[in-house]
Amino acid sequence: MALVTSGNSEFDRDTAVTRRATGIYEAQLSAGWTIIQAVNGGYLLALMGRALGDALPHPDPLSVTAHYLTASVPGPAVIRTEVVRTGRTMSTGTATLVQFAEDGSEVERLRVLAAYGDLGALPDDVRTTAKPPAIPPYEHCLGADSAPGGAPAIPGSTAIAGRLDLRLDPATAGWAIGAPSGRGEMRAWFGLADGRDPDPLSLLLTVDALPPTAFEMGLSGWVPTVELTVHVRHRPAPGPLRVAITTRNLAGGFLEEDAEVWDAEDRLVAQSRQLARALGVE
Amino acid sequence: MALVTSGNSEFDRDTAVTRRATGIYEAQLSAGWTIIQAVNGGYLLALMGRALGDALPHPDPLSVTAHYLTASVPGPAVIRTEVVRTGRTMSTGTATLVQFAEDGSEVERLRVLAAYGDLGALPDDVRTTAKPPAIPPYEHCLGADSAPGGAPAIPGSTAIAGRLDLRLDPATAGWAIGAPSGRGEMRAWFGLADGRDPDPLSLLLTVDALPPTAFEMGLSGWVPTVELTVHVRHRPAPGPLRVAITTRNLAGGFLEEDAEVWDAEDRLVAQSRQLARALGVE
Repeated sequence: MALVTSGNSEFDRDTAVTRRATGIYEAQLSAGWTIIQAVNGGYLLALMGRALGDALPHPDPLSVTAHYLTASVPGPAVIRTEVVRTGRTMSTGTATLVQFAEDGSEVERLRVLAAYGDLGALPDDVRTTAKPPAIPPYEHCLGADSAPGGAPAIPGSTAIAGRLDLRLDPATAGWAIGAPSGRGEMRAWFGLADGRDPDPLSLLLTVDALPPTAFEMGLSGWVPTVELTVHVRHRPAPGPLRVAITTRNLAGGFLEEDAEVWDAEDRLVAQSRQLARALGVE
Repeated sequence: MALVTSGNSEFDRDTAVTRRATGIYEAQLSAGWTIIQAVNGGYLLALMGRALGDALPHPDPLSVTAHYLTASVPGPAVIRTEVVRTGRTMSTGTATLVQFAEDGSEVERLRVLAAYGDLGALPDDVRTTAKPPAIPPYEHCLGADSAPGGAPAIPGSTAIAGRLDLRLDPATAGWAIGAPSGRGEMRAWFGLADGRDPDPLSLLLTVDALPPTAFEMGLSGWVPTVELTVHVRHRPAPGPLRVAITTRNLAGGFLEEDAEVWDAEDRLVAQSRQLARALGVE
């Protein structure tokens, strides 16, 4: 048995897993990353990423897809990984996270399929036309401590709010005071509350940490993720991240959320897309 | 044993699979969908989707992710599926496609993780801000039979060109005459050459059927797909499709390709993103 983690930040402690056997890990889902009762999907993805980073020969997540099957709850969980293929520059693996019902039977929470590589070994070429999001300076954005008059704190009075240093662009925070913009946009500064710098693993949390764009589209219902895919494109520089999320198509009770994460050196470090159910319109 | 297909079009014949046992299918990878020697990734995805549609209780692919592990070759293959979860409105499954080396050993070609549902059962609400691509009328676009002077036929003198009715927007076809636009854009009208109308399964082919955006970015090397995720958002209407592909970030030898597919009734019927290697810059 071996503890798999890095450092002693809240994020690293709460995403630590214990190897019980080759490819099999025990984890404790922390209550510190919940939104109301639900364990945050990005936190779960980082936990799976931690296990896969140990099970696979390459260190960094390049492309990670998760299908969310049932709602995870704080407490013990088991992660089982399978090495699908090992190549020179990339390896591919799957992971499943299960929890246990009162009768002891296993309940699968999510299934992951991922490609890992070494971001440090990639060439330095950059030919990007994407631009960092237009977002006001950090001090002009809204945090959990600066909710507009009487509104619920942003991003909501939930445990995860205490773990994150999230500052929403006021232009995408109207939902919090009952005045959503109607646009499928959400932008924020993102950091971990204890100052832990970003790395490829924490980006798996970052892409799913903002309030749903559906709130700004005027939907009040919950927006459970069906599938989330993250591409980690570059190792993030220390310092605050900027996250921009866009929804262009809400139809048939589903919507996509496209997230971009930019680091302090204006590098596009992660892109993600999730398919979610818009229960508010069903 | 049971043949799993629908209709008798080229696409339906070449994506037919034979159920040998519960969840296990035999397939013949057709040489008709190759680009140079490589079997097209979208065709392979449709083949996997055909098997999953039989193995899962729901008919339509909603979200399908494929990791391409090794290059498939025309000839026999075996697809094994696993039902991960069956819900009321959605089910989740995995599939793996293997071929056989000369010594008879199995070689895995791709691994798929997918959510299926019933597109016909979704509510009719549409609140989309996405717009169909600006693309000239079909008759003003360039097909395999209308390559500019002396250039290789578009989309290339490959077997798949005979299976598709692909008409490229001249504004994104400069690469074919050695004058790429430098922009990461590719737009085309898409149809199947024998007139077979689109359906949710054929959309899995459509999202990966255009020449790579990298060609318009001036890269000459091949662009192998690492991971491809497709969201089928609506059952396509009969008639031609319009496909727009965009690349915003080429960095570290990787690029993303975002595809949108619009049907004849101006519905956004599919969105996809793939992570590919840009070997031309490595």
